[in-house]
Amino acid sequence: MNDFTYFAPTKVVFGKGAEGQVGKLCKEQGATKVLVHFGGGSAKRSGLLDRVCAALEEEGLPYVTLGGVVPNPRLSLVYEGIELCRREGVDFLLAVGGGSVIDSCKAIGYGLANDFDVWELFDKKRAAAGCAPVGAVLTIAAAGSEMSDSTVITKDEGELKRGYNSNYCRCKFAVLNPELTYTLPEYQTACGVTDIMMHIMERYFVNVETMTVTDTMAEAVIRDVLRYGKAALEDPRDYRARAEIMWAGSLAHNGLLCAGGPNGDWASHQIEMELSGMFGVAHGAGLAAIWGSWARYVLDAKPQRFAQFAYRIFDLPQTGDPTVDGLRGIEAMEDYFRSIRMPVNLRELGVGELTEEQIDELAEKCTYFGRRTIGQFKVLGKEDIKAIYRMAQ
Amino acid sequence: MNDFTYFAPTKVVFGKGAEGQVGKLCKEQGATKVLVHFGGGSAKRSGLLDRVCAALEEEGLPYVTLGGVVPNPRLSLVYEGIELCRREGVDFLLAVGGGSVIDSCKAIGYGLANDFDVWELFDKKRAAAGCAPVGAVLTIAAAGSEMSDSTVITKDEGELKRGYNSNYCRCKFAVLNPELTYTLPEYQTACGVTDIMMHIMERYFVNVETMTVTDTMAEAVIRDVLRYGKAALEDPRDYRARAEIMWAGSLAHNGLLCAGGPNGDWASHQIEMELSGMFGVAHGAGLAAIWGSWARYVLDAKPQRFAQFAYRIFDLPQTGDPTVDGLRGIEAMEDYFRSIRMPVNLRELGVGELTEEQIDELAEKCTYFGRRTIGQFKVLGKEDIKAIYRMAQ
Repeated sequence: MNDFTYFAPTKVVFGKGAEGQVGKLCKEQGATKVLVHFGGGSAKRSGLLDRVCAALEEEGLPYVTLGGVVPNPRLSLVYEGIELCRREGVDFLLAVGGGSVIDSCKAIGYGLANDFDVWELFDKKRAAAGCAPVGAVLTIAAAGSEMSDSTVITKDEGELKRGYNSNYCRCKFAVLNPELTYTLPEYQTACGVTDIMMHIMERYFVNVETMTVTDTMAEAVIRDVLRYGKAALEDPRDYRARAEIMWAGSLAHNGLLCAGGPNGDWASHQIEMELSGMFGVAHGAGLAAIWGSWARYVLDAKPQRFAQFAYRIFDLPQTGDPTVDGLRGIEAMEDYFRSIRMPVNLRELGVGELTEEQIDELAEKCTYFGRRTIGQFKVLGKEDIKAIYRMAQ
Repeated sequence: MNDFTYFAPTKVVFGKGAEGQVGKLCKEQGATKVLVHFGGGSAKRSGLLDRVCAALEEEGLPYVTLGGVVPNPRLSLVYEGIELCRREGVDFLLAVGGGSVIDSCKAIGYGLANDFDVWELFDKKRAAAGCAPVGAVLTIAAAGSEMSDSTVITKDEGELKRGYNSNYCRCKFAVLNPELTYTLPEYQTACGVTDIMMHIMERYFVNVETMTVTDTMAEAVIRDVLRYGKAALEDPRDYRARAEIMWAGSLAHNGLLCAGGPNGDWASHQIEMELSGMFGVAHGAGLAAIWGSWARYVLDAKPQRFAQFAYRIFDLPQTGDPTVDGLRGIEAMEDYFRSIRMPVNLRELGVGELTEEQIDELAEKCTYFGRRTIGQFKVLGKEDIKAIYRMAQ
C-alpha cells in the first residue's frame, strides 16, 4: 500500500435544474466578471446557455461569452480566451459543456495565472504557480474533468495532444444535472461510458499491493457504470441511469479510486491520445479500440489482477489459472464494449490500417520523442507501444 | 433519488510519518500563529506532540498549546480556548487527537469567527457565519470529524451533548498516519470501529430510493471495516488493518456515502448521545448497545432494506420473507459487535437498569424538550424513544 494525498475540493451541486444556482455559486467564489465558455451550438439550441446567463444576470454578475470549443480542444482558442479575459477583466471561468470545454477553461485559467506561454506547461517545460478559478456546468458524463486535476489540450500545429496535472485547476464547483444529458447522441453516451470505465480501470490495473477499500469501491463503481451505461443507451431519458453515470464519472477521476495505490497506469490513455491527436477520433471510442490490446500485452505482468477483475466485475468462474481467467475478463470487457457499439480495434474505430511509418510516428510522439516510458502495470517503451498499435489493428 | 450537494474539501495526507508535514500544511493555509490543541497525556507520552511542535518550528511558525480535552468535549474548555486564541492572536487551530479534540477545535473556531456565545449554535438558536481554519493530526479512527461538517460539544451544566453542522468547520487538512493508532487500547479500537460502522449505517438505513453507486460503495466500506476491525484487534500493529480502518473512518463521515439520499437517519446517534451525556459512556460502545433495539423497533418501516443489508454484508440466504431476513441481518450485526467485545444492551454497556424517571429524562432531552422528532427511516417521537431505551435494557 502506498502513502497518498487525497484532495477533491470541488463542491458538487447535483440534481434537476441545478444550473439555476450557477450565479449564486460564482458569487460565492468572489467572481466579479465571468467568462462563459462553451462548445458548439447544442448548449445554445437547448436553451442551457440562456438559463446559465440568466442565472448570472439574476446575481448581477457581468459576463462575456466565448464559444467554439471542439473535441480535443485547441491551444489556439485557449490563447484567444486568455486575451479576451485579460482585456475584459474576467476573474472567473465558467465552463458550460463537457470535458473539452472544462479543459479549455482550465488552460485559460493557467494562462491567466502564469506569465509565460501556457503551452510550456503541457510541454512539461514549466510548472504552474496557480490557475484562475474555474466552475463547470456539465453536459456530458465522460471526462471527469469537473473534479479532476487534469487538463488536456491539443496544439494545432503538429496535432500534439498533451496533458497537465495540478491541484490548482480543480473546479471550484461542478453543477451536475443528469437531465442535461438526455439529448446526447447514442455514440457520445457510449464514448462517455467508456471513458468513465477507463478512468477507473487505469487506476485499478496497477502493479502494487492496493488498498482493499479502494479496490472494492472501484469495483462497485465499475459495475454501476456497466449496468447503467446499458440502461442509458436503452432509454436516454432514464433519470436514474443518467444520474448514476454522471456521478460515477466524477468519482472515477477525482482521486478517490486510487487512494493507497500509485496514480494509475495511464498507458491506454497515452496510447489513445496519439490516435485522437492524429486522427481526431473520439477519445472514448479510441480507448475502447486500444484497451484489449494493451490488456493482452501486459497481462503477464500480473495475471492475478486481471483474474480478480474477471471474478468481481463479470462474476466469471475460477479455473485455477489466473492467466486464463484474466484473459476471459478481458474478453468479457470487450464483449461489453461491443454491446454498447464501441469499437474494439482500430479497424472498427474507422482509422483503417496504419502504415509502419504511422505506427512509428505515433509511438515516437507517445514517448515524447524518447523522453519518457509509459505505464505502471508494465512499463512500456517505444517498441512495446508499437507492438500494441499493431495488435490493435 | 434525492438531489444532493457533495463538498469534502479537506486535503488528506495519508501515510507513515505524515505528521512531519504539518508545519508545511499549516503554512500553506496562511497560518501565522497556531493553537496546538490536544487531550490527555498520551499525545505527550508518545512523543507525537513533540514531533508536531518540531514540524511547526521548522517552518518558523509560533504556537501556543492547550491540552485537557476529554471524551465528550466540554464547553468550558472551548470558552478557555477562544479566550486564549484571542489573547494570543492565533489564526489557525491544529487538533492533535481524535474526534473530541477536533470537535473542541472546531467549536473554538466557531467562537473566534462569530460574535455571540458559541453555545447558541449548539442550542440551535443561531447560525454560524464562519469558522476559524482547523487542521487535524488524527490519533484514532472513529469519529470521522477530520472530514465531516459535524461538531459535538457537551455543556458542563446539565450534561447537554449537542451537535452543530456546517461546511465552515470542515478541516483544511487531515494528517492520517495509521501507525499513530498502534498503541490504542483494544476497547478504544473497538469503539472506533463501531462508530465508523454506524456513520455508514446511519446513512444506509434511510427510507427513500437511494442511489445504487452510493449503496454499493457503502456496502464495500462496511465490509472493509468489519474485516479489518477484527484484524486490528487481533494484531494492533497490522499496518494494513489500521490503514483500511483509518481511511474508512474518513470516508464514512465525509458525505460520500449519502450522495443521492437524505443526510441519514441519525436516530441511533441521537439516542446514544443522551446516554453518553448522562453517563459519560464511550460513544462507540453506546451506539453498539442501542443499535439492535433501534433496528428492531424500526424494521417494519422497510424490512427490505434490512434484508438487503443481511444479503450484501453478511452473505445471508434469502428466505423469501424480508422481515425474517432483516432480523437475521440485525442479529448478525449484533454477533459482530459481540465478537469485538462491544455491548449490545445497556446492561453490558455498564449503565445498569434505567429507572422510568431516567428514561423519561433521556427521551425528553433527546427531543430537545419537545422541540423535535428524530429519525428518517422511521420518524420517532418521545414515546418511541422511550420504548427503544426500554428495549435496550
